[in-house]
Amino acid sequence: MPDLLTERSARVAAARKLTRRTGRDDAGAFLAEGRQAVTEALAEAETDPDAVLELFATEAAAVAHGELLASTRVPVHLVTERAAASLSETVTPQGLVAVCALRDVDAGTLVTDPPRLAVALAELADPGNAGTVLRTADACGAGTVVFGSGSADPYNGKVVRSSAGSLFHVDVVRGASLAELVPQVQAAGTMVLAADGGGEVALDEAADDGLLAAPVLWLFGNEARGLDPELAATADARVRIPMRGRAESLNLSVAASICLYATQLAQG
Amino acid sequence: MPDLLTERSARVAAARKLTRRTGRDDAGAFLAEGRQAVTEALAEAETDPDAVLELFATEAAAVAHGELLASTRVPVHLVTERAAASLSETVTPQGLVAVCALRDVDAGTLVTDPPRLAVALAELADPGNAGTVLRTADACGAGTVVFGSGSADPYNGKVVRSSAGSLFHVDVVRGASLAELVPQVQAAGTMVLAADGGGEVALDEAADDGLLAAPVLWLFGNEARGLDPELAATADARVRIPMRGRAESLNLSVAASICLYATQLAQG
Repeated sequence: MPDLLTERSARVAAARKLTRRTGRDDAGAFLAEGRQAVTEALAEAETDPDAVLELFATEAAAVAHGELLASTRVPVHLVTERAAASLSETVTPQGLVAVCALRDVDAGTLVTDPPRLAVALAELADPGNAGTVLRTADACGAGTVVFGSGSADPYNGKVVRSSAGSLFHVDVVRGASLAELVPQVQAAGTMVLAADGGGEVALDEAADDGLLAAPVLWLFGNEARGLDPELAATADARVRIPMRGRAESLNLSVAASICLYATQLAQG
Repeated sequence: MPDLLTERSARVAAARKLTRRTGRDDAGAFLAEGRQAVTEALAEAETDPDAVLELFATEAAAVAHGELLASTRVPVHLVTERAAASLSETVTPQGLVAVCALRDVDAGTLVTDPPRLAVALAELADPGNAGTVLRTADACGAGTVVFGSGSADPYNGKVVRSSAGSLFHVDVVRGASLAELVPQVQAAGTMVLAADGGGEVALDEAADDGLLAAPVLWLFGNEARGLDPELAATADARVRIPMRGRAESLNLSVAASICLYATQLAQG
Protein backbone atom coordinates (compact mmCIF):
# COMPACT_ATOMS: atom_id res chain seq x y z
CA MET A 1 0.00 0.00 0.00
CA PRO A 2 1.47 3.34 -1.03
CA ASP A 3 2.16 6.21 1.32
CA LEU A 4 -0.67 8.72 1.08
CA LEU A 5 0.07 12.42 1.32
CA THR A 6 -1.84 14.03 4.17
CA GLU A 7 -3.20 17.56 4.36
CA ARG A 8 -0.08 18.47 6.33
CA SER A 9 2.38 17.48 3.60
CA ALA A 10 4.24 20.37 1.98
CA ARG A 11 2.93 19.43 -1.47
CA VAL A 12 -0.71 19.46 -0.44
CA ALA A 13 -0.21 22.62 1.63
CA ALA A 14 1.31 24.34 -1.40
CA ALA A 15 -1.63 23.27 -3.58
CA ARG A 16 -4.09 24.46 -0.94
CA LYS A 17 -2.76 28.01 -1.37
CA LEU A 18 -4.21 27.88 -4.88
CA THR A 19 -7.74 28.00 -3.45
CA ARG A 20 -7.08 31.73 -2.92
CA ARG A 21 -6.52 34.30 -5.64
CA THR A 22 -3.30 35.64 -4.17
CA GLY A 23 -1.96 32.09 -3.93
CA ARG A 24 -2.85 31.44 -7.57
CA ASP A 25 -1.21 34.64 -8.75
CA ASP A 26 1.95 33.98 -6.72
CA ALA A 27 2.31 30.42 -8.01
CA GLY A 28 1.00 30.97 -11.53
CA ALA A 29 -1.27 27.94 -11.08
CA PHE A 30 -4.86 26.99 -10.26
CA LEU A 31 -6.87 23.93 -9.27
CA ALA A 32 -9.27 22.02 -11.52
CA GLU A 33 -11.42 19.53 -9.64
CA GLY A 34 -13.43 16.50 -10.63
CA ARG A 35 -13.59 14.16 -13.62
CA GLN A 36 -14.83 16.62 -16.21
CA ALA A 37 -12.37 19.43 -15.51
CA VAL A 38 -9.41 17.04 -15.04
CA THR A 39 -10.23 15.26 -18.29
CA GLU A 40 -10.20 18.56 -20.18
CA ALA A 41 -7.01 19.65 -18.43
CA LEU A 42 -5.22 16.41 -19.34
CA ALA A 43 -6.40 16.72 -22.95
CA GLU A 44 -4.68 20.12 -22.99
CA ALA A 45 -1.56 18.59 -21.46
CA GLU A 46 -1.23 16.26 -24.44
CA THR A 47 -0.48 19.18 -26.74
CA ASP A 48 1.02 21.48 -24.11
CA PRO A 49 3.17 19.55 -21.61
CA ASP A 50 3.28 22.56 -19.28
CA ALA A 51 -0.52 22.88 -18.97
CA VAL A 52 -0.85 20.52 -15.98
CA LEU A 53 1.80 20.36 -13.28
CA GLU A 54 0.54 17.52 -11.11
CA LEU A 55 -2.51 15.55 -10.04
CA PHE A 56 -3.86 14.63 -6.62
CA ALA A 57 -6.15 11.63 -6.27
CA THR A 58 -7.59 9.68 -3.38
CA GLU A 59 -7.20 5.91 -3.63
CA ALA A 60 -10.91 5.60 -4.45
CA ALA A 61 -10.62 8.23 -7.18
CA ALA A 62 -7.49 6.59 -8.58
CA VAL A 63 -9.46 3.37 -8.99
CA ALA A 64 -12.55 5.10 -10.37
CA HIS A 65 -10.50 7.13 -12.88
CA GLY A 66 -7.77 4.51 -13.47
CA GLU A 67 -7.92 4.74 -17.25
CA LEU A 68 -7.67 8.52 -17.23
CA LEU A 69 -4.69 8.54 -14.85
CA ALA A 70 -2.91 5.73 -16.69
CA SER A 71 -3.08 7.65 -19.95
CA THR A 72 -1.14 10.71 -18.81
CA ARG A 73 2.48 11.50 -18.11
CA VAL A 74 1.49 14.10 -15.52
CA PRO A 75 2.71 12.95 -12.07
CA VAL A 76 -0.06 11.60 -9.83
CA HIS A 77 0.11 11.89 -6.03
CA LEU A 78 -2.13 9.71 -3.92
CA VAL A 79 -3.64 11.61 -1.02
CA THR A 80 -5.88 10.94 1.95
CA GLU A 81 -9.59 11.76 1.74
CA ARG A 82 -8.99 14.59 4.16
CA ALA A 83 -6.17 16.03 2.05
CA ALA A 84 -8.37 15.90 -1.06
CA ALA A 85 -11.17 17.61 0.84
CA SER A 86 -8.74 20.35 1.90
CA LEU A 87 -8.16 21.14 -1.81
CA SER A 88 -11.84 21.07 -2.64
CA GLU A 89 -14.37 23.88 -2.61
CA THR A 90 -17.35 21.56 -3.02
CA VAL A 91 -19.55 19.92 -0.42
CA THR A 92 -18.91 16.48 -1.90
CA PRO A 93 -15.26 16.40 -3.05
CA GLN A 94 -14.61 14.05 -5.95
CA GLY A 95 -11.10 13.19 -4.74
CA LEU A 96 -9.46 14.22 -8.03
CA VAL A 97 -7.68 17.57 -8.45
CA ALA A 98 -5.29 18.84 -11.13
CA VAL A 99 -2.79 21.64 -10.57
CA CYS A 100 -2.84 23.60 -13.83
CA ALA A 101 -0.80 26.50 -15.13
CA LEU A 102 -2.65 29.81 -15.45
CA ARG A 103 -3.64 30.06 -19.09
CA ASP A 104 -4.81 33.59 -19.76
CA VAL A 105 -3.61 35.33 -22.88
CA ASP A 106 -2.91 38.98 -23.63
CA ALA A 107 -5.87 41.19 -24.56
CA GLY A 108 -3.89 42.21 -27.66
CA THR A 109 -4.90 38.96 -29.37
CA LEU A 110 -8.41 40.42 -29.77
CA VAL A 111 -6.83 43.11 -31.95
CA THR A 112 -4.23 41.10 -33.85
CA ASP A 113 -6.42 38.06 -34.48
CA PRO A 114 -10.09 38.95 -33.80
CA PRO A 115 -12.28 35.89 -33.12
CA ARG A 116 -15.68 35.89 -34.87
CA LEU A 117 -17.30 35.89 -31.43
CA ALA A 118 -15.84 37.17 -28.15
CA VAL A 119 -17.28 38.05 -24.75
CA ALA A 120 -16.21 40.64 -22.19
CA LEU A 121 -17.47 40.52 -18.62
CA ALA A 122 -17.63 43.94 -16.95
CA GLU A 123 -17.74 43.64 -13.16
CA LEU A 124 -19.60 40.35 -13.30
CA ALA A 125 -19.43 39.35 -9.65
CA ASP A 126 -20.88 35.88 -9.19
CA PRO A 127 -18.44 33.05 -9.96
CA GLY A 128 -21.30 30.68 -10.87
CA ASN A 129 -22.61 33.15 -13.42
CA ALA A 130 -19.11 33.74 -14.78
CA GLY A 131 -18.53 30.02 -15.25
CA THR A 132 -21.92 29.56 -16.87
CA VAL A 133 -21.25 32.37 -19.35
CA LEU A 134 -17.84 30.83 -20.11
CA ARG A 135 -19.55 27.48 -20.79
CA THR A 136 -22.18 29.00 -23.08
CA ALA A 137 -19.59 31.15 -24.85
CA ASP A 138 -17.63 27.98 -25.60
CA ALA A 139 -20.77 26.18 -26.79
CA CYS A 140 -21.60 29.06 -29.12
CA GLY A 141 -18.11 29.05 -30.63
CA ALA A 142 -16.63 32.10 -28.91
CA GLY A 143 -12.87 32.27 -29.20
CA THR A 144 -12.16 34.56 -26.25
CA VAL A 145 -13.75 35.52 -22.93
CA VAL A 146 -12.38 38.65 -21.26
CA PHE A 147 -12.77 38.89 -17.48
CA GLY A 148 -12.59 42.66 -17.11
CA SER A 149 -11.15 44.31 -14.03
CA GLY A 150 -13.65 43.97 -11.17
CA SER A 151 -15.04 40.66 -12.43
CA ALA A 152 -14.78 37.28 -10.77
CA ASP A 153 -11.44 35.52 -11.20
CA PRO A 154 -11.63 32.90 -14.01
CA TYR A 155 -9.49 30.56 -11.88
CA ASN A 156 -11.82 30.71 -8.86
CA GLY A 157 -12.88 27.15 -8.04
CA LYS A 158 -16.54 27.86 -8.60
CA VAL A 159 -15.87 29.47 -11.99
CA VAL A 160 -13.77 26.48 -13.05
CA ARG A 161 -16.48 24.07 -11.88
CA SER A 162 -19.44 25.84 -13.44
CA SER A 163 -17.55 26.30 -16.70
CA ALA A 164 -17.70 22.48 -16.96
CA GLY A 165 -14.33 22.26 -18.72
CA SER A 166 -14.87 25.23 -21.03
CA LEU A 167 -12.08 27.18 -19.32
CA PHE A 168 -9.78 24.84 -21.26
CA HIS A 169 -11.48 25.46 -24.61
CA VAL A 170 -11.47 29.23 -25.02
CA ASP A 171 -8.84 31.92 -24.69
CA VAL A 172 -9.23 33.77 -21.41
CA VAL A 173 -8.09 37.35 -20.81
CA ARG A 174 -7.87 38.54 -17.25
CA GLY A 175 -8.11 41.94 -15.61
CA ALA A 176 -8.27 44.01 -18.81
CA SER A 177 -9.57 47.58 -18.74
CA LEU A 178 -12.63 47.38 -20.96
CA ALA A 179 -12.67 51.16 -21.39
CA GLU A 180 -9.30 50.80 -23.13
CA LEU A 181 -10.07 47.58 -24.95
CA VAL A 182 -13.36 48.59 -26.63
CA PRO A 183 -11.94 51.33 -28.92
CA GLN A 184 -8.98 49.09 -29.80
CA VAL A 185 -11.13 46.18 -30.98
CA GLN A 186 -13.47 48.59 -32.79
CA ALA A 187 -10.48 50.05 -34.65
CA ALA A 188 -9.59 46.48 -35.64
CA GLY A 189 -13.04 46.00 -37.21
CA THR A 190 -14.93 44.23 -34.39
CA MET A 191 -18.56 45.21 -33.73
CA VAL A 192 -18.98 45.85 -29.98
CA LEU A 193 -22.48 45.19 -28.61
CA ALA A 194 -23.58 46.04 -25.07
CA ALA A 195 -26.24 43.82 -23.51
CA ASP A 196 -28.53 46.36 -21.90
CA GLY A 197 -32.13 45.90 -20.75
CA GLY A 198 -32.84 49.46 -21.87
CA GLY A 199 -30.93 49.16 -25.15
CA GLU A 200 -32.17 50.89 -28.32
CA VAL A 201 -32.04 47.75 -30.49
CA ALA A 202 -33.95 44.52 -29.86
CA LEU A 203 -31.89 41.35 -30.23
CA ASP A 204 -33.98 40.03 -33.13
CA GLU A 205 -33.69 43.38 -34.92
CA ALA A 206 -29.93 43.30 -34.35
CA ALA A 207 -29.85 39.95 -36.14
CA ASP A 208 -32.03 41.22 -39.00
CA ASP A 209 -29.94 44.37 -39.36
CA GLY A 210 -26.68 42.45 -39.68
CA LEU A 211 -25.24 43.71 -36.38
CA LEU A 212 -24.35 40.17 -35.32
CA ALA A 213 -22.12 39.47 -38.33
CA ALA A 214 -18.59 38.49 -37.34
CA PRO A 215 -16.51 39.70 -35.69
CA VAL A 216 -18.59 40.60 -32.62
CA LEU A 217 -17.59 41.37 -29.02
CA TRP A 218 -20.43 41.27 -26.47
CA LEU A 219 -20.25 43.28 -23.24
CA PHE A 220 -22.12 41.91 -20.20
CA GLY A 221 -22.35 43.83 -16.94
CA ASN A 222 -22.89 43.37 -13.24
CA GLU A 223 -25.79 41.20 -11.99
CA ALA A 224 -27.38 44.00 -9.95
CA ARG A 225 -26.19 47.21 -11.58
CA GLY A 226 -25.97 46.11 -15.22
CA LEU A 227 -23.37 47.74 -17.46
CA ASP A 228 -21.72 51.03 -16.54
CA PRO A 229 -23.54 53.57 -18.78
CA GLU A 230 -20.25 55.17 -19.81
CA LEU A 231 -18.91 51.85 -21.02
CA ALA A 232 -22.21 50.93 -22.71
CA ALA A 233 -22.14 54.28 -24.53
CA THR A 234 -18.86 53.35 -26.21
CA ALA A 235 -20.37 50.22 -27.79
CA ASP A 236 -21.58 50.29 -31.41
CA ALA A 237 -25.09 49.43 -30.19
CA ARG A 238 -26.91 48.65 -26.95
CA VAL A 239 -29.05 45.55 -27.38
CA ARG A 240 -32.07 44.51 -25.32
CA ILE A 241 -33.74 41.11 -25.24
CA PRO A 242 -37.39 41.60 -26.17
CA MET A 243 -39.69 40.17 -23.49
CA ARG A 244 -43.34 39.43 -24.00
CA GLY A 245 -44.08 38.53 -20.37
CA ARG A 246 -44.12 40.36 -17.06
CA ALA A 247 -40.65 39.63 -15.71
CA GLU A 248 -38.66 42.85 -15.29
CA SER A 249 -35.39 41.32 -16.34
CA LEU A 250 -33.53 38.08 -16.91
CA ASN A 251 -30.87 36.35 -14.86
CA LEU A 252 -27.51 37.64 -16.13
CA SER A 253 -26.15 34.32 -17.35
CA VAL A 254 -29.49 33.62 -19.07
CA ALA A 255 -29.46 36.99 -20.84
CA ALA A 256 -25.87 36.49 -21.93
CA SER A 257 -26.64 33.00 -23.20
CA ILE A 258 -29.59 34.19 -25.31
CA CYS A 259 -27.39 36.90 -26.88
CA LEU A 260 -24.61 34.43 -27.62
CA TYR A 261 -26.93 31.81 -29.09
CA ALA A 262 -28.57 34.43 -31.33
CA THR A 263 -25.12 35.49 -32.52
CA GLN A 264 -24.06 31.93 -33.29
CA LEU A 265 -27.27 31.48 -35.33
CA ALA A 266 -26.81 34.76 -37.19
CA GLN A 267 -23.20 33.91 -38.02
CA GLY A 268 -24.43 30.63 -39.52
CA MET B 1 -42.02 52.37 20.44
CA PRO B 2 -44.05 49.35 19.36
CA ASP B 3 -43.58 45.90 20.81
CA LEU B 4 -41.48 43.82 18.46
CA LEU B 5 -42.25 40.15 17.98
CA THR B 6 -39.27 37.96 18.82
CA GLU B 7 -38.26 34.66 17.25
CA ARG B 8 -39.99 32.93 20.18
CA SER B 9 -43.42 34.45 19.55
CA ALA B 10 -46.07 32.00 18.38
CA ARG B 11 -46.68 33.98 15.19
CA VAL B 12 -43.04 33.98 14.13
CA ALA B 13 -42.64 30.34 15.15
CA ALA B 14 -45.63 29.41 12.99
CA ALA B 15 -44.18 31.31 10.03
CA ARG B 16 -40.81 29.65 10.54
CA LYS B 17 -42.41 26.28 9.87
CA LEU B 18 -42.99 27.53 6.31
CA THR B 19 -39.29 27.31 5.59
CA ARG B 20 -39.84 23.52 5.29
CA ARG B 21 -41.94 21.80 2.64
CA THR B 22 -44.03 19.83 5.11
CA GLY B 23 -44.77 23.01 7.03
CA ARG B 24 -45.85 24.76 3.83
CA ASP B 25 -48.10 21.90 2.81
CA ASP B 26 -49.68 21.69 6.27
CA ALA B 27 -50.38 25.40 6.44
CA GLY B 28 -51.13 26.01 2.76
CA ALA B 29 -48.74 28.96 2.80
CA PHE B 30 -45.20 29.95 1.90
CA LEU B 31 -42.73 32.78 2.51
CA ALA B 32 -41.71 35.43 0.03
CA GLU B 33 -38.72 37.46 1.13
CA GLY B 34 -37.28 40.81 0.13
CA ARG B 35 -38.49 43.90 -1.66
CA GLN B 36 -38.98 42.40 -5.11
CA ALA B 37 -40.95 39.31 -4.07
CA VAL B 38 -43.03 41.19 -1.47
CA THR B 39 -43.88 43.91 -4.01
CA GLU B 40 -45.15 41.29 -6.45
CA ALA B 41 -47.04 39.49 -3.70
CA LEU B 42 -48.78 42.69 -2.59
CA ALA B 43 -49.68 43.51 -6.20
CA GLU B 44 -51.42 40.12 -6.31
CA ALA B 45 -53.17 40.88 -3.02
CA GLU B 46 -54.82 43.93 -4.58
CA THR B 47 -56.87 41.73 -6.88
CA ASP B 48 -56.96 38.64 -4.64
CA PRO B 49 -57.34 39.60 -0.95
CA ASP B 50 -56.46 36.04 0.11
CA ALA B 51 -53.10 35.99 -1.70
CA VAL B 52 -51.07 37.42 1.20
CA LEU B 53 -51.90 36.58 4.82
CA GLU B 54 -49.49 38.79 6.73
CA LEU B 55 -46.18 40.61 6.58
CA PHE B 56 -43.20 40.65 8.90
CA ALA B 57 -40.84 43.60 8.86
CA THR B 58 -37.97 44.77 11.00
CA GLU B 59 -38.14 48.40 12.10
CA ALA B 60 -35.38 49.24 9.62
CA ALA B 61 -37.25 47.48 6.79
CA ALA B 62 -40.50 49.18 7.76
CA VAL B 63 -38.78 52.54 7.33
CA ALA B 64 -37.01 51.56 4.12
CA HIS B 65 -40.20 50.16 2.58
CA GLY B 66 -42.64 52.57 4.25
CA GLU B 67 -44.47 53.46 1.07
CA LEU B 68 -44.97 49.83 0.12
CA LEU B 69 -46.29 48.88 3.57
CA ALA B 70 -48.55 51.93 3.83
CA SER B 71 -50.25 51.03 0.55
CA THR B 72 -51.52 47.60 1.62
CA ARG B 73 -54.32 46.33 3.83
CA VAL B 74 -52.33 43.20 4.66
CA PRO B 75 -51.48 43.22 8.40
CA VAL B 76 -47.85 44.10 9.16
CA HIS B 77 -46.06 42.72 12.23
CA LEU B 78 -42.90 44.43 13.40
CA VAL B 79 -40.24 41.89 14.41
CA THR B 80 -36.75 41.90 15.83
CA GLU B 81 -33.76 41.51 13.50
CA ARG B 82 -33.25 38.05 14.95
CA ALA B 83 -36.86 37.04 14.30
CA ALA B 84 -36.58 38.23 10.69
CA ALA B 85 -33.35 36.31 10.27
CA SER B 86 -35.07 33.17 11.59
CA LEU B 87 -37.53 33.42 8.67
CA SER B 88 -34.84 34.04 6.10
CA GLU B 89 -32.90 31.59 4.00
CA THR B 90 -30.40 34.16 2.80
CA VAL B 91 -27.05 35.17 4.22
CA THR B 92 -28.09 38.82 4.34
CA PRO B 93 -31.79 38.92 5.35
CA GLN B 94 -33.68 41.93 4.04
CA GLY B 95 -35.95 42.10 7.08
CA LEU B 96 -39.12 41.91 4.99
CA VAL B 97 -41.13 38.69 4.61
CA ALA B 98 -44.65 38.03 3.30
CA VAL B 99 -46.70 34.97 4.26
CA CYS B 100 -48.49 34.03 1.04
CA ALA B 101 -51.15 31.46 0.22
CA LEU B 102 -49.99 28.55 -1.95
CA ARG B 103 -51.06 29.45 -5.45
CA ASP B 104 -50.70 26.37 -7.61
CA VAL B 105 -53.49 25.49 -10.00
CA ASP B 106 -54.76 22.18 -11.28
CA ALA B 107 -52.91 20.58 -14.21
CA GLY B 108 -56.27 20.33 -15.96
CA THR B 109 -56.04 24.02 -16.91
CA LEU B 110 -53.41 23.03 -19.48
CA VAL B 111 -56.09 20.95 -21.19
CA THR B 112 -59.13 23.20 -20.78
CA ASP B 113 -57.36 26.47 -21.55
CA PRO B 114 -53.97 25.73 -23.18
CA PRO B 115 -51.52 28.64 -22.91
CA ARG B 116 -49.52 29.43 -26.06
CA LEU B 117 -46.35 28.58 -24.16
CA ALA B 118 -45.99 26.30 -21.13
CA VAL B 119 -43.08 24.61 -19.39
CA ALA B 120 -42.85 21.31 -17.51
CA LEU B 121 -39.89 20.51 -15.25
CA ALA B 122 -39.18 16.79 -14.97
CA GLU B 123 -37.08 16.00 -11.90
CA LEU B 124 -35.31 19.35 -12.04
CA ALA B 125 -33.47 19.24 -8.74
CA ASP B 126 -31.72 22.55 -8.14
CA PRO B 127 -33.96 25.28 -6.68
CA GLY B 128 -31.81 28.02 -8.22
CA ASN B 129 -32.24 26.51 -11.67
CA ALA B 130 -35.97 26.04 -11.12
CA GLY B 131 -36.42 29.68 -10.11
CA THR B 132 -34.33 30.87 -13.05
CA VAL B 133 -36.43 28.83 -15.50
CA LEU B 134 -39.59 30.23 -13.90
CA ARG B 135 -38.23 33.76 -14.36
CA THR B 136 -37.31 33.20 -18.02
CA ALA B 137 -40.61 31.42 -18.72
CA ASP B 138 -42.41 34.50 -17.39
CA ALA B 139 -40.21 36.83 -19.45
CA CYS B 140 -40.95 34.82 -22.60
CA GLY B 141 -44.70 34.95 -21.99
CA ALA B 142 -45.30 31.42 -20.71
CA GLY B 143 -48.68 31.03 -19.00
CA THR B 144 -47.92 27.94 -16.93
CA VAL B 145 -44.92 26.21 -15.36
CA VAL B 146 -45.45 22.63 -14.20
CA PHE B 147 -43.18 21.36 -11.43
CA GLY B 148 -43.41 17.63 -12.12
CA SER B 149 -43.16 15.05 -9.37
CA GLY B 150 -39.54 14.76 -8.26
CA SER B 151 -38.75 18.40 -9.06
CA ALA B 152 -37.84 21.14 -6.63
CA ASP B 153 -40.78 22.67 -4.74
CA PRO B 154 -41.85 25.97 -6.35
CA TYR B 155 -42.36 27.41 -2.83
CA ASN B 156 -38.84 26.60 -1.69
CA GLY B 157 -37.22 29.86 -0.54
CA LYS B 158 -34.45 29.66 -3.10
CA VAL B 159 -36.91 29.06 -5.94
CA VAL B 160 -39.02 32.03 -4.84
CA ARG B 161 -35.92 34.21 -4.62
CA SER B 162 -34.34 33.22 -7.93
CA SER B 163 -37.70 33.56 -9.70
CA ALA B 164 -37.39 37.28 -8.90
CA GLY B 165 -41.15 37.71 -8.50
CA SER B 166 -42.16 35.58 -11.48
CA LEU B 167 -43.78 32.99 -9.21
CA PHE B 168 -46.56 35.57 -8.89
CA HIS B 169 -46.91 36.10 -12.65
CA VAL B 170 -47.43 32.61 -14.06
CA ASP B 171 -49.72 29.72 -13.19
CA VAL B 172 -47.82 27.05 -11.29
CA VAL B 173 -48.76 23.37 -11.24
CA ARG B 174 -47.17 21.21 -8.58
CA GLY B 175 -46.40 17.50 -8.38
CA ALA B 176 -48.09 16.46 -11.62
CA SER B 177 -47.25 13.14 -13.27
CA LEU B 178 -45.78 14.23 -16.59
CA ALA B 179 -46.30 10.74 -18.05
CA GLU B 180 -50.03 11.28 -17.58
CA LEU B 181 -50.06 14.96 -18.51
CA VAL B 182 -48.23 14.75 -21.86
CA PRO B 183 -50.84 12.67 -23.77
CA GLN B 184 -53.63 14.79 -22.28
CA VAL B 185 -52.19 18.10 -23.52
CA GLN B 186 -51.33 16.52 -26.88
CA ALA B 187 -54.95 15.41 -27.25
CA ALA B 188 -55.94 19.02 -26.55
CA GLY B 189 -53.79 20.22 -29.45
CA THR B 190 -50.58 21.28 -27.70
CA MET B 191 -47.24 20.46 -29.32
CA VAL B 192 -44.99 18.79 -26.73
CA LEU B 193 -41.26 19.33 -27.24
CA ALA B 194 -38.55 17.60 -25.22
CA ALA B 195 -35.29 19.51 -24.71
CA ASP B 196 -32.70 16.81 -25.35
CA GLY B 197 -29.00 17.22 -26.16
CA GLY B 198 -29.27 14.21 -28.45
CA GLY B 199 -32.59 15.27 -30.02
CA GLU B 200 -33.32 14.62 -33.71
CA VAL B 201 -34.32 18.22 -34.47
CA ALA B 202 -32.11 21.29 -34.05
CA LEU B 203 -33.80 24.24 -32.38
CA ASP B 204 -33.42 26.51 -35.43
CA GLU B 205 -34.88 23.78 -37.66
CA ALA B 206 -37.77 23.39 -35.22
CA ALA B 207 -38.49 27.10 -35.67
CA ASP B 208 -38.22 26.89 -39.46
CA ASP B 209 -40.45 23.80 -39.56
CA GLY B 210 -43.23 25.46 -37.57
CA LEU B 211 -42.83 23.20 -34.52
CA LEU B 212 -42.74 26.20 -32.21
CA ALA B 213 -46.15 27.53 -33.26
CA ALA B 214 -48.55 27.90 -30.33
CA PRO B 215 -49.58 26.11 -28.25
CA VAL B 216 -46.27 24.53 -27.14
CA LEU B 217 -45.30 22.69 -23.94
CA TRP B 218 -41.56 22.30 -23.33
CA LEU B 219 -40.19 19.44 -21.21
CA PHE B 220 -36.91 20.04 -19.36
CA GLY B 221 -35.15 17.28 -17.42
CA ASN B 222 -32.74 16.73 -14.58
CA GLU B 223 -29.45 18.69 -14.46
CA ALA B 224 -27.26 15.58 -14.47
CA ARG B 225 -29.37 12.87 -16.09
CA GLY B 226 -31.37 14.93 -18.56
CA LEU B 227 -34.86 13.79 -19.47
CA ASP B 228 -36.06 10.27 -18.82
CA PRO B 229 -35.87 8.64 -22.30
CA GLU B 230 -39.35 7.12 -21.87
CA LEU B 231 -40.86 10.52 -21.19
CA ALA B 232 -38.86 12.15 -24.01
CA ALA B 233 -40.14 9.47 -26.40
CA THR B 234 -43.73 10.55 -25.76
CA ALA B 235 -43.02 14.12 -26.93
CA ASP B 236 -43.88 15.19 -30.47
CA ALA B 237 -40.20 15.95 -31.08
CA ARG B 238 -36.93 15.93 -29.24
CA VAL B 239 -35.06 19.18 -29.81
CA ARG B 240 -31.34 19.85 -29.43
CA ILE B 241 -29.62 23.21 -29.25
CA PRO B 242 -27.04 23.29 -32.05
CA MET B 243 -23.57 24.10 -30.70
CA ARG B 244 -20.68 25.23 -32.83
CA GLY B 245 -18.08 25.12 -30.06
CA ARG B 246 -16.47 22.42 -27.93
CA ALA B 247 -18.67 22.45 -24.80
CA GLU B 248 -20.41 19.10 -24.36
CA SER B 249 -23.61 20.59 -23.04
CA LEU B 250 -25.20 23.70 -21.60
CA ASN B 251 -26.26 24.54 -18.06
CA LEU B 252 -29.87 23.40 -17.71
CA SER B 253 -31.39 26.81 -17.03
CA VAL B 254 -29.40 28.25 -19.93
CA ALA B 255 -30.62 25.53 -22.31
CA ALA B 256 -34.21 26.03 -21.18
CA SER B 257 -33.92 29.78 -21.60
CA ILE B 258 -32.62 29.49 -25.16
CA CYS B 259 -35.53 27.16 -26.06
CA LEU B 260 -38.07 29.51 -24.50
CA TYR B 261 -36.65 32.62 -26.15
CA ALA B 262 -36.63 30.89 -29.54
CA THR B 263 -40.27 29.93 -29.01
CA GLN B 264 -41.28 33.46 -28.07
CA LEU B 265 -39.58 34.74 -31.23
CA ALA B 266 -41.21 32.09 -33.43
CA GLN B 267 -44.63 32.85 -31.98
CA GLY B 268 -44.09 36.52 -32.86
